[in-house]
Amino acid sequence: MSSEPLKIVVIGGSAAGPKAAAKARRTDEFAEITLIQRDPDLSMASCGYPYYIGGTFDDRNLLVCSPAGVPRDPKFFDKAKRIHALVRTEAVSIDREHKTVTYRHLDSGHQDSIAYDRLVLATGAAPLRPAAPGADLEGVLALHSLADADALRAVRDQGQVTRAIIVGGGLIGFEVCEALRLAGIETTIIEKTPQVLPFLDPDLARLVVNHTRTQGADIITGNGVAEFLGEEGRLTGVKLDNGTELPAQLAVISVGVRPSIALAQAAGLEIGEQGGLLVNEFMQTSDPDIYAAGDCVECTSMITQAQNRAPYGDLANLQGRVVGQNVIEPGSARFPGNIQTGICKIFDYTVGVTGLSASAAHAAGLDVETVLISGLDIPMFMHGQLLISKLVAERGSERILGFQCIGPGDVSKRVAVMATAITGKLTVSDMVNADLPYAPPYSLALDHVIVAAHAMENKLKGRMHGLSVSEVKRKVDAGEDVFILDTRNPEEFEEMRLGIGETLIPQGALRDRLNELPQDKDKEIVLYCKISLRGYECAAILQAHGWRNVKVMEGGLVAWPYPREK
Amino acid sequence: MSSEPLKIVVIGGSAAGPKAAAKARRTDEFAEITLIQRDPDLSMASCGYPYYIGGTFDDRNLLVCSPAGVPRDPKFFDKAKRIHALVRTEAVSIDREHKTVTYRHLDSGHQDSIAYDRLVLATGAAPLRPAAPGADLEGVLALHSLADADALRAVRDQGQVTRAIIVGGGLIGFEVCEALRLAGIETTIIEKTPQVLPFLDPDLARLVVNHTRTQGADIITGNGVAEFLGEEGRLTGVKLDNGTELPAQLAVISVGVRPSIALAQAAGLEIGEQGGLLVNEFMQTSDPDIYAAGDCVECTSMITQAQNRAPYGDLANLQGRVVGQNVIEPGSARFPGNIQTGICKIFDYTVGVTGLSASAAHAAGLDVETVLISGLDIPMFMHGQLLISKLVAERGSERILGFQCIGPGDVSKRVAVMATAITGKLTVSDMVNADLPYAPPYSLALDHVIVAAHAMENKLKGRMHGLSVSEVKRKVDAGEDVFILDTRNPEEFEEMRLGIGETLIPQGALRDRLNELPQDKDKEIVLYCKISLRGYECAAILQAHGWRNVKVMEGGLVAWPYPREK
Repeated sequence: MSSEPLKIVVIGGSAAGPKAAAKARRTDEFAEITLIQRDPDLSMASCGYPYYIGGTFDDRNLLVCSPAGVPRDPKFFDKAKRIHALVRTEAVSIDREHKTVTYRHLDSGHQDSIAYDRLVLATGAAPLRPAAPGADLEGVLALHSLADADALRAVRDQGQVTRAIIVGGGLIGFEVCEALRLAGIETTIIEKTPQVLPFLDPDLARLVVNHTRTQGADIITGNGVAEFLGEEGRLTGVKLDNGTELPAQLAVISVGVRPSIALAQAAGLEIGEQGGLLVNEFMQTSDPDIYAAGDCVECTSMITQAQNRAPYGDLANLQGRVVGQNVIEPGSARFPGNIQTGICKIFDYTVGVTGLSASAAHAAGLDVETVLISGLDIPMFMHGQLLISKLVAERGSERILGFQCIGPGDVSKRVAVMATAITGKLTVSDMVNADLPYAPPYSLALDHVIVAAHAMENKLKGRMHGLSVSEVKRKVDAGEDVFILDTRNPEEFEEMRLGIGETLIPQGALRDRLNELPQDKDKEIVLYCKISLRGYECAAILQAHGWRNVKVMEGGLVAWPYPREK
Repeated sequence: MSSEPLKIVVIGGSAAGPKAAAKARRTDEFAEITLIQRDPDLSMASCGYPYYIGGTFDDRNLLVCSPAGVPRDPKFFDKAKRIHALVRTEAVSIDREHKTVTYRHLDSGHQDSIAYDRLVLATGAAPLRPAAPGADLEGVLALHSLADADALRAVRDQGQVTRAIIVGGGLIGFEVCEALRLAGIETTIIEKTPQVLPFLDPDLARLVVNHTRTQGADIITGNGVAEFLGEEGRLTGVKLDNGTELPAQLAVISVGVRPSIALAQAAGLEIGEQGGLLVNEFMQTSDPDIYAAGDCVECTSMITQAQNRAPYGDLANLQGRVVGQNVIEPGSARFPGNIQTGICKIFDYTVGVTGLSASAAHAAGLDVETVLISGLDIPMFMHGQLLISKLVAERGSERILGFQCIGPGDVSKRVAVMATAITGKLTVSDMVNADLPYAPPYSLALDHVIVAAHAMENKLKGRMHGLSVSEVKRKVDAGEDVFILDTRNPEEFEEMRLGIGETLIPQGALRDRLNELPQDKDKEIVLYCKISLRGYECAAILQAHGWRNVKVMEGGLVAWPYPREK
C-alpha cells in the first residue's frame, strides 16, 4: 500500500476486457484500472443475440444486466469493481516508449491520453464483408454489435421482412437462420464453398443440411453472392455467382471475422500468420508489458501446437482471467491453448465438435483412424433421441484427437466429455471402460461416448472394417461390384430402405442363409442395419465363415444423408 | 475351425452375463456358449423399472425387447447370437476339478450338468432384508426382479394403496419414492442412519431432502423400522425404532444389496473383504478358468486402489464385455477399475457424484481441499437452472478426486465431465482453462465445472477462505462472535434473507462503508450473497484493507439448507 498503485489500462469492453479488469481488481484492490470501450455497452452477452432475435426471450435487459439485474454500465463497474470504464471511447494509439494510450471520446471528439504500467488489448474482431457490390444497401446487416442485434430483433417485431438471405454457412449463419425462421421468415443460407460448417467432416455436414431443410430453410452451397441487388438504396435480392437471383428484403453477412489488430499493428506488436496478435502462454504480446486476450489473439492448439483462431466467448473469458492475474503478478497464470471446441443449436439438432475433424487431422499430416456411430442418448423407453458421432484417434498412440457429434439428442454432454478426454490426452482405451454416470434419464447403460470408444477399439484392433456412407454411395454410383446386405427385420425393411441394390437377410436368419451370399470369399460385402450394430455383429459371422472383404457401413441407415427408396 | 470349439458357460442372464456371452460370440463364432438364468427373463432393462412403475412409460415390452422390438428370449439369443439360453434354470454347483456346472430346471426339477472350458459368474446381487419382524407380510416388497416391478406397477394401476413406506434412503429408495409419488401415493422414506444418500456429503444431502419434501414426500432419518405391522397377513403400517407408528399398505425395502456368491463360495473361490468375488484386472477369479462380472464382484478404485462394491448396470456391461473377450482370448482385455460414479433423478433434481466425497477422502486418509459452488447451468435468459456442486481435490498434487453435483440443472453433463477428468487423473489446473463446448443453450461462457475449478484454485492458492453452510450454522447456534455480511442488493434482501444476525452492505457500497465493519481486524467476518460470487469479491476487498480473518460462506444463500427468516 505504500508503493505507487499499478496503472492498468484495458482496451475493449466486451468479454475478455472486462474479465481481465475484474480479475485484476480482485488480485489488487489498489491498482488503478481503466477500461476503454468504443461501444456504448459493456460486457454484453453477445452469444445470446441470436436467441433474443429469435424470441427465446424478449427482455433486452438480460443481455446487458448482471444476474442480480443491475445494468453493467460505467456506474456498475465503478461501484462494484472500482473500474473506471470509458464508453463511446476509442483508443487511438499506443506509445510503447512512454507507456501511454491516446484515446478519443466519440461523442465530444475530445482526445486525451493515459499512462499504463501494463496494457491489455482486448480489441476483439470485426465481421468480414464480402467484396460483392451492393453490400452497403439498407437491409444488408451483420450480427456483431448489440445495435446489430437490435436491428435484427426489430425485423422480428415489425414483421415486414418475408425473405432473408444468410451469406455464409458457419455457426453464426446457422444461428441467425434459426432465429429468422422462428420469426416466420423464408430464409436461405448461401455458402460459397462446397460445404457448410467446415469444422465438420462432409458426411455429418450433409445430415445437418438435411435437418435444416426439414425446418423450412434452404441451403445453397458452392455458390457465392455476386451482387446485392437493390432499389432506392434498399436491398431487394441477391444475385449468385451462377447468375441465379433470389429476392430478399434482408441479408445477413456471416462470412467470419477478422481480428481487430490495427492498434497493435501500428504499435509494432508481433502479428501471427493467422492474422491475430501473437501471445505467449502468459498471454503476453511481443511487448512484455502488453497483454492480449479474446478474439484479437491467436491460440495455440494443444493437439498440434499449430496456431489457430478461435473467436469464442468462453476462451475470451478464460484468457481474460489469465491476463487479469498476470498484469498484477506477471507469470502467475498460464493459458495452455485450445482444442477448438465448438457447439451450435440448429433447430432441433445440436452440432458439436472438439479437437480435430478427420479432414483437419489429415491436413495436419496425422495418421488417424476414424469411426462413425449412431445411437440413442438415453433409452427408447425414456424417449431417447438420436446422436450421430465421429471419433478421430491417432493410430499407434491411440490418443483421442477429435470428436464430432450431431443430432436431436444430448450432444453437448458427449462433446464436453470428449473435450475433457482430449484435454487430458486420454487414449481410446481410457474411454473404453470409463465409469460415467448412468441412470436411464441420462444415458444408456453404455453411454454413446463409450460405444464410440468400443467401435474405435474394434477398428484399431482390426475386428471391424468400416466404410463411410459416402464411400458406399460412391461405389454404388460407380457401379462397383459390391454385395450389399441389410440385416434388419422385414418389417423394418418395409418401412424404410435404401434401395441401392441391397439384399435383406435379417440377423437372426443369417447363419442359416449363408448360401445366399457370394461364393467368392474375396468379394466385397457391405453390411448395415438401422445403426449398424447388427450389421457389425453379422460382419463378424461372415468373417468367421471365411469371407475376407467384409465391411460395415458406419452409422447405418440413420446416417445415410442421400435420398432413399423409401 | 479344425480344433474343438471352446465351451463357455455363463451363469446369470441379467446384464453382465448376456453381455459376456454376446461379446464371446462376436470374438469366436464357433464357441459353444450356454447361458444359465434363474429368472424367466433375460437382459431385462432393470434400471428402467422405477420409470415403468412411475408411468414414464406404460409398455412393459420396452423392458424386455431389443431396440428393434424383438423379445430378448431364448429364441432371440439362439437366432441372433447363437447362444443357448436356459431360463428358469438354477446353477446348483461348480465342479472345478472336472470343469462342470450342475444345474436344475426350476419347473421340472430336472437336474443336469454341463462341461466348460471357461466359466463366467454373473450371479448378481440380492436385496438385503431388514431383520425387523413382519418383513414377510403381504405388502412388503423390494424392487429387484421384473416380478417386483410388475407388482409395484400394479400398485399404480390398481390405485388402492394410499400410503407407502420406503425402507432405506439410497438411490433405489429415492427412485421408488418418486415413482410412488407420481402414482399419487403418500410416501415416507425411513433411513436408519442420520443421513440419506451416503455418497453425498451432508450439506448436499440436506438440500436433496429439502427438495424431496417440497414434492410431498417425507423423509425420516436416524430412525429405523423396528417392526412391520399387519393384520391378517397384510401390512398395515410400520413401527419405528423410536416407537412411532406410521400407517402404510405398502413398504418397499431398499437397504442395499449383497453379492450373490453362494455358488462361488461353495466352489472355493476367493471372496473379498467387501463381500464380493475377488477378480484381477482381467476379471478372473482365483480360478483362472473362471471369470466374474457385475454385481457379484468387487471393484478396485482407480483413485485409492481400495476394493469397493459398485452394483451398477453400466459397470456390469463394461465388465461383461471384458470377460466376453477374455474367455476367448485370455488376457486380451483389462478392466481398470471404477471411480464410483453414480447418478439419480429425484423429482426435479438430479443428484450425481463421481470419485470421492470429502467424507470418503478423509476416511481414506487423503489430505484434501474442498469447495462448494452454486450457479446456473445455462444463462438466465435461456432459462438456466441451478446447480450446486462440491469439488474435492488433493492438496499438493492438486489432482481432482471427487465431484458431487445436485439441482434442477443439467447435472449429468457436469458429472460426466468430472468423471472423465478423474479417469484421466487431471488436476485442478487442467480444468481451469478447459476448452468446453460453449453456446447459450448449453452452458454459461464459463461452465459450472470451470467455475468450480477456479474456486478450487482460489482456495488452494489461499486467495479465498471458505466456510460451509453447516459451519456457519454451527457458529451462529453456538453464539460465536462472528460478523456476518450479506453483500446483495436491498431488494434481494427484502425478498429472501437468512436472519442469522447478518448485516447488509451491498457490494457496490462496501468500499464507502468499511467503517461499519468491526474495527478489530482479527475478528472473523463471513460474507455471502445469493451464490457467494459477490461475497467472494467483497472478501478480497476486506482482505486488501487489512482484515485478516475473512471467509466466504460457500455456495451462498441458495446452498443454505436450514430455515430462513424469509
